[in-house]
Amino acid sequence: MNVLIIYAHPEPKSFNGALKDLDVSELTSLGHQVKVSDLYAMNFKAVADRDDFQMLENEDFFKYAKEQKRATKTNSFSKDIQREQEKLLWADFVIFQFPLWWFSVPAILKGWFDRVFASGFAYSSENRYDSGGLKGRKAMLSTTTGSPKQAYTPYGIDGDIHERILYHINHGMLYFAGLEPIEPFIAWTPSHNDEDRKRYLEEYKRRLNNLSEIPAISYHPTSHYDEHHQLKKEYRAF
Amino acid sequence: MNVLIIYAHPEPKSFNGALKDLDVSELTSLGHQVKVSDLYAMNFKAVADRDDFQMLENEDFFKYAKEQKRATKTNSFSKDIQREQEKLLWADFVIFQFPLWWFSVPAILKGWFDRVFASGFAYSSENRYDSGGLKGRKAMLSTTTGSPKQAYTPYGIDGDIHERILYHINHGMLYFAGLEPIEPFIAWTPSHNDEDRKRYLEEYKRRLNNLSEIPAISYHPTSHYDEHHQLKKEYRAF
Repeated sequence: MNVLIIYAHPEPKSFNGALKDLDVSELTSLGHQVKVSDLYAMNFKAVADRDDFQMLENEDFFKYAKEQKRATKTNSFSKDIQREQEKLLWADFVIFQFPLWWFSVPAILKGWFDRVFASGFAYSSENRYDSGGLKGRKAMLSTTTGSPKQAYTPYGIDGDIHERILYHINHGMLYFAGLEPIEPFIAWTPSHNDEDRKRYLEEYKRRLNNLSEIPAISYHPTSHYDEHHQLKKEYRAF
Repeated sequence: MNVLIIYAHPEPKSFNGALKDLDVSELTSLGHQVKVSDLYAMNFKAVADRDDFQMLENEDFFKYAKEQKRATKTNSFSKDIQREQEKLLWADFVIFQFPLWWFSVPAILKGWFDRVFASGFAYSSENRYDSGGLKGRKAMLSTTTGSPKQAYTPYGIDGDIHERILYHINHGMLYFAGLEPIEPFIAWTPSHNDEDRKRYLEEYKRRLNNLSEIPAISYHPTSHYDEHHQLKKEYRAF
């Protein structure tokens, strides 16, 4: 497989850095092709603005999504966006490695989604979710938390990690753009002790050796929704 | 009241810009003191990194939250972070005005949370949620969507706006830091027609005139959770 790793942490010696390094060494030794976007090392521009385009359709009233749509057609994104989009098209599998900051991705990674997952490229009004622009590719979140696992259970103080916290990323970003997200890898409070970190690195290594066996998160295809965007009654199992 | 408006949109003529302008004019005419952080106009730095501190405790191994904790004690954040923190301490009410991008805040606003809601200032391991650093203040999200309201219902294709989408912001960012979030103001697909925009501006104006009557979102205080971070059985109404 061609594996793209999107990595967002300011400290190379961090546990996130160790997980990213393990991605590269393990996946390479398994015979995969690996590319890394190390957003901090690249000094990746986080903020979506006019500079993201080589030209603008409307200088007087800047509409970001509209300019994205045009830039996709005319191939006129800024070079840094083009490079990331090319890597996505090359990839069969995308791994996102980041610390969970404020129950979401760090701003530098949010900016990567805002800018690279462009209208016309990653989605359109007709092509979203299972028909999104990046369909045919799998993806996985690999993240670290500052609170223990119990805090993220359905009755946990921080909210259910899958249904309330990662949903806006797995469903709203990855699946929306056509990627098929598999179950995330979560290292709970790995900063607290060395033993945990070792155990998580071993566990992550096993996962990298069995990526194809990790189940996809079960989301409904768009065909399960009616013309009012409501899940059809026959699919409401819960 | 002292009202702080955190505004994140790249185009001043946008509908988000109009809502922000209405905030300023209406709240001022009602006798409130108003300050605005126009993140795009300020060219606000989105990415959390070493430059956020006037000095570092550990140059060799950069731990962001640890440096934040120290910077709070020694008053050594970068000037732009200090200014935002001072505005927060001044405010009785904080309004966040932004377009919903990828089911979350734009990167420039995520960066504002990452950098300004610092460990030691907005929270600590002991002081979170109802005892968070910004307690005693209210807050409100005011946002615009690209999909219609039906898409965000419990069976909607994009996921329940309150439980699945805005939860990580209202509960995870605002409430976590001690702010008391009231029900958000949401303009659904306002870009689609002029009539809708007029109607939303009138509706928003009415809301600004009745801010104190808008109910707070009902979240449990930390005392409702046990030592394993689980909601105590007597509070599980659902």
